[in-house]
Amino acid sequence: MTTIDSNKKICTLINVFAVDPEKHLELFEDLKEATENFMSKLPGYISANLHISDDKKTITNYAQWASLADFQSMLKNEEAQVHMKKAASIATEFKPVTYSEIWIHSK
Amino acid sequence: MTTIDSNKKICTLINVFAVDPEKHLELFEDLKEATENFMSKLPGYISANLHISDDKKTITNYAQWASLADFQSMLKNEEAQVHMKKAASIATEFKPVTYSEIWIHSK
Repeated sequence: MTTIDSNKKICTLINVFAVDPEKHLELFEDLKEATENFMSKLPGYISANLHISDDKKTITNYAQWASLADFQSMLKNEEAQVHMKKAASIATEFKPVTYSEIWIHSK
Repeated sequence: MTTIDSNKKICTLINVFAVDPEKHLELFEDLKEATENFMSKLPGYISANLHISDDKKTITNYAQWASLADFQSMLKNEEAQVHMKKAASIATEFKPVTYSEIWIHSK
């Protein structure tokens, strides 16, 4: 279980991948494998939460890093770049955006 | 605090709004007000989690509804449509996508 907590000063990455529905499982398996075997071992990794859309056209990774600096270090890591290029080659588009301010409302 | 739990069979809506950075606070306040005063009172509402990007060019709402049917009922609600049109008029683009399958990995 992952928690979204506006009081925790972490870096949230929401990366929206557009994908051909026929390739959505290939992309999902690739992102899952990269998370389990590589990304999760990097400093500052907190969680990855892969969401498969109902229409199978989008996979969104809601990921949490301890800080923006940790996320940026990952971007510079050569092995991480290999993983990111592979995911990019399966997807038709991807848009990673980082967030540090969150406002939460719940019932 | 919001929880992401892959065992809960709910509808997750991730709505990514692109916005002129100068208007990001206007969009944030509008989405916040619509959540507090209207959306949160509709059947099936669980939570809304507004994320302001570090570069202020994106506001992403990670929202939870009890079911896809509840979310779709909201879309048909005339007052909800007024709220959605207002947010759309402040943003330059928005892309709502619904998800029911989530895979979670955490440290």
